[in-house]
Amino acid sequence: MIEALRGIVGTGHVVTDRVDLAGYDCDGRGPAGRAAALVRPRSVEEVAAVVALAAREKVRVVPQGARTGLVAGGVADESGSMLLLSLERLVEPLEIDPINRTARVGAGVSLSRLNAAADEHGLFFPIDLGADPTVGGMISANTGGARFFRYGDVRRNTLALELVVSSAEGHVLELGRDCWKQNDGIDLKQMVIGAGGGLGVVTAATLALQPRPVHSVSALIALSDASAIEALLVAFEQKWGMLLTAFEGISAGAYAAALAHLPRLRRPFAASHPYFVLIELSAGALLQSDQLEEMLVTGVAPFLEGVEPLVADVAVDHGGGLWALRHALTEGLRASGTVIGCDIALRRGDVATFRAEMIAELERDHPQILICDFGHIGDGGLHFNLVWPHAAGAAPDGLADALRLRISTIVVERFGGSFSAEHGVGPRNIVGYRTLTALPVQRLAGCVQSLFAPVPIGRVVYGPMADDGGNVPAPATA
Amino acid sequence: MIEALRGIVGTGHVVTDRVDLAGYDCDGRGPAGRAAALVRPRSVEEVAAVVALAAREKVRVVPQGARTGLVAGGVADESGSMLLLSLERLVEPLEIDPINRTARVGAGVSLSRLNAAADEHGLFFPIDLGADPTVGGMISANTGGARFFRYGDVRRNTLALELVVSSAEGHVLELGRDCWKQNDGIDLKQMVIGAGGGLGVVTAATLALQPRPVHSVSALIALSDASAIEALLVAFEQKWGMLLTAFEGISAGAYAAALAHLPRLRRPFAASHPYFVLIELSAGALLQSDQLEEMLVTGVAPFLEGVEPLVADVAVDHGGGLWALRHALTEGLRASGTVIGCDIALRRGDVATFRAEMIAELERDHPQILICDFGHIGDGGLHFNLVWPHAAGAAPDGLADALRLRISTIVVERFGGSFSAEHGVGPRNIVGYRTLTALPVQRLAGCVQSLFAPVPIGRVVYGPMADDGGNVPAPATA
Repeated sequence: MIEALRGIVGTGHVVTDRVDLAGYDCDGRGPAGRAAALVRPRSVEEVAAVVALAAREKVRVVPQGARTGLVAGGVADESGSMLLLSLERLVEPLEIDPINRTARVGAGVSLSRLNAAADEHGLFFPIDLGADPTVGGMISANTGGARFFRYGDVRRNTLALELVVSSAEGHVLELGRDCWKQNDGIDLKQMVIGAGGGLGVVTAATLALQPRPVHSVSALIALSDASAIEALLVAFEQKWGMLLTAFEGISAGAYAAALAHLPRLRRPFAASHPYFVLIELSAGALLQSDQLEEMLVTGVAPFLEGVEPLVADVAVDHGGGLWALRHALTEGLRASGTVIGCDIALRRGDVATFRAEMIAELERDHPQILICDFGHIGDGGLHFNLVWPHAAGAAPDGLADALRLRISTIVVERFGGSFSAEHGVGPRNIVGYRTLTALPVQRLAGCVQSLFAPVPIGRVVYGPMADDGGNVPAPATA
Repeated sequence: MIEALRGIVGTGHVVTDRVDLAGYDCDGRGPAGRAAALVRPRSVEEVAAVVALAAREKVRVVPQGARTGLVAGGVADESGSMLLLSLERLVEPLEIDPINRTARVGAGVSLSRLNAAADEHGLFFPIDLGADPTVGGMISANTGGARFFRYGDVRRNTLALELVVSSAEGHVLELGRDCWKQNDGIDLKQMVIGAGGGLGVVTAATLALQPRPVHSVSALIALSDASAIEALLVAFEQKWGMLLTAFEGISAGAYAAALAHLPRLRRPFAASHPYFVLIELSAGALLQSDQLEEMLVTGVAPFLEGVEPLVADVAVDHGGGLWALRHALTEGLRASGTVIGCDIALRRGDVATFRAEMIAELERDHPQILICDFGHIGDGGLHFNLVWPHAAGAAPDGLADALRLRISTIVVERFGGSFSAEHGVGPRNIVGYRTLTALPVQRLAGCVQSLFAPVPIGRVVYGPMADDGGNVPAPATA
C-alpha cells in the first residue's frame, strides 16, 4: 500500500520513518497515538485517490490539519495502523471576493494566511483564536473563539464546502454555493461541519468574511462577586447592542496563574478580586474610539456605584494589553501544573450556578487542585480548566479522565449543557460521550429512514420518486 | 381512519367538510390543492399518534402552520388524498429565558406572539417579515427576512427542536439543547431546518433572541444607476460596521406600483429614479438617534457629491414611514396584475449584473411584463418579481411556470445562485428543481454511507462500534 500511496502523491510525500512521524503524532495538548504512515496529497484528486485506496485496503484514515486541536481528533490512535492524511499542501485556492465578502480556500490554508489575504480588503474571518489552525481543521471541529458572541462559529460562517466521501470510489461532493443564502432543501454541508471528519475529508470551502472593525476599546471589569456576570451581560447588551463584540470571563485562579508566569504583563489592578470580565466594544470607521470609550464608561458607571456595587474596579485599554493577558491564560495554566481541560457549554444563566456548585465540590474532594477556569461567558461557553500543581507531585493515575467524566456528566445531566462547546469531538473529550448522549447515528438513521418511508411526511419528496416519470438526475459527484 | 383520528384528537378537531376545508387549501399566494381532511392535535403525543396512524394507513401527511408560505409547501396537492396536520393548537410552551436570551416555543406559536412575549424583556426574534407565520412553518422554510443581513436566518437562530419522525412508531426526537453552543458531533437539527417538513413534523423549538435595538434611523437612497449598489454596500459596511442592520433594494417598478396603489404613503422624492436602497442603522440605548443620523449623513455624503455622483437623493426617516413603503411593495404588485414571483439568491457582486441581463432579455421577449423586483441586496437575496398587468388581459397559459423555470435556470446555471433564498421549497418553486440540481437524497446517501463504511474516515466513529464492547446506549426517542 505504501508503494500505491507513493504512486498517487509522489515518493517524497509519503512519510513512514518513525522519527519523522513523531511530530505528526502530537496535537495542541501534546503526544497522542502512533500513526503507521502519513501521506500529503496536493489536490482533491489525490485526496480522493488516497481515500479510495484506503477504503479498498481497509486502512483507517485520519485527516490532519495544523495539529492545533485539543481533543486528539486529528491524530492517530495507539494501534499503529492508522494512515494520517495531511491537508497541509492544499493551500490553493485562496481567493477573496471583496464584494460578496467571501473567501474560497483550500483546506490546508491557515487562519493567519486567510486573514492576511482578507485584511487587504478590510475584511476578516471572525473566528478569533490563540492558535493558528487550518480551514479544514476548523470546519471539522466547528471552532468558536472569543468573538463567537458576536459573529458565531465556523458553521455560521461557512457557505459551501468540498468533501471527499469515504468510499472505494472516492466520491467528491460540492455542498452549497458561494452565496449567503441558499434555501432549496436539506442543507447537507451542515452535517459535515463539526463532524470531526466522520463523514469524509473536507478539501476546500467558501467562507463568509466580516468587515474588520476600525475602532475598538476594551475593558477588564473586576467583579465583587462572580454571580454579577448575569446582570452585567443583560445590561450591557441592552446598552451597547451590536457594538459589544466580546464578553469573556476570567477566574481569579487563571488570572493569578497568567500574571505569576508572565511578569511582562501589565497588572490591571493593584488589589485582587474574585472574578473578572473582559469586554470589547468595536465599530466601523465612523464611530471613533473616544465615543466608544465614553459609551463604555457610561455603561459601567451604574454598577460601580451604590450601596452594594457589582463592579469593584475597571481598567480601560485601547492597545490590546488586556487581550494579551487573556491570550496568556493558557500558557499561565500550563506553567502552573498539569492542565485538566473541559470545554463545556451551558445556558448563560447557569454559568454562575455551575461554577459555584462545581468549585464547592472540587474544593471538598480535591483540595490540591487549582480551579483556573475562563471562557466565553457571553455565549455560555466555559473552559472549565483545572490544574494539578507541579508542587503537589504527580497526579494520581486516572484522575484526569475521572474528573473529565464527572464534570461532563454534571454539565450534561444536571445542567442540560454540552461537553464540547468549541473544541469538537475526539478521544480526549469523548471520554464520557457514549454513555452520556445517544450515538448520533441512531437519531440520524431515524431521520434518514423517514425520507424513504413508504408514506413520507410533507410536500417535498426527497426519495427516488419512481412515480414521477423517473426524472432522476445523475448523482452530484465529480 | 377518520374515526381513528377522532379517537386521537377528539371529534371537534378533525375537519372533513369541503366548505370548512377550503380555507386550509390556500397559502400566502392563494389556492393550491385539495386536502382529504385536516386534523388539529394539541400535543406532541397527539402529533406522534397521528403520524404513526398515517404511516400505517399509507396516507401522506402535510404539516401546516399559518398558511403564510409562498411556495405551497404547507398545503395539500390536487390528489384529494392528503391529510393536513395543523399545528395551530401547539401554542404551548411560550417561555422566555431573558438571561439566556432564548425562547422555548410550541410549533404553533406565531411570530407576533413570540415577539410580544420577548418584547417584555427588551428582546426580539430577529426574523423580520411582513407575514405572521408560525414557528414550525418558519423552521420548515428556514425563513430569512429584511434583517437576515445582520441577524441571519431561522437556522442561525434555532438552538434546539423537537421532531416527530415519520414512522409507524411515531418516534419523537429532541435535537439540540437550550444552549448557544453545542459541538459534540453531527448537528442533526440542521438537517430538519429548511427541509420543508420532509424529515418529520417539528412540534417545538428553542429559539435564540436578540436585544431589541433602542434607537434607529432609516434612509431611502435614490441611485443614479442601479449598479451603484456594490460600491455603496462595501463602503457602508466599512463605515458603519455592525450598526448597519438592513440594506434593501427596490426597483423603480416596485416603487411606482406601491405608490400608485397606496396614495396614503408619503412620497420620499419628487423626481423619479432608476433604483432605490433602503438602509437602517440601529443601536442600543447608549447611542442616540441624532448620533446615528449624523453618522448616516456623514457616510452617504461622499456619494452625493463629485462629478458623477452615485447617489441622486436621500430621504431620512425616524418614524417608520420608509419601512411602511417597503412593506407595501407586495400589495402594490398584487394590485397591478398577476405576480410571477421568484425568490432567488446570488453572490452580492452578481445582483446588478443579473438584473441588467435579465431585464434586457425580458424587455425584448415580453414587453408587456412589468419588472418589479425588490429584496435583500445586502445578502444577495432578490425577490425577482414580475407582473403581468391587468391592462394586458389574461396571461398566456403556462407563461408563469415557463418564466420561473427560465429565471431559475439562469440563476443556478449561469450565476451559481439558488432558486430559493428564503421561501424554502414547495411545488410553486420546485418547478425546475429536479432538473436543475441533483436530488439531495443522493448526496445524503453518499454521506451517510460513509458513516457505515467498512473503513470509516476520522477518529470519531459514528457506527455501531461492535468492536468497542457494545456500549451502545438506547435510542434517543421519547
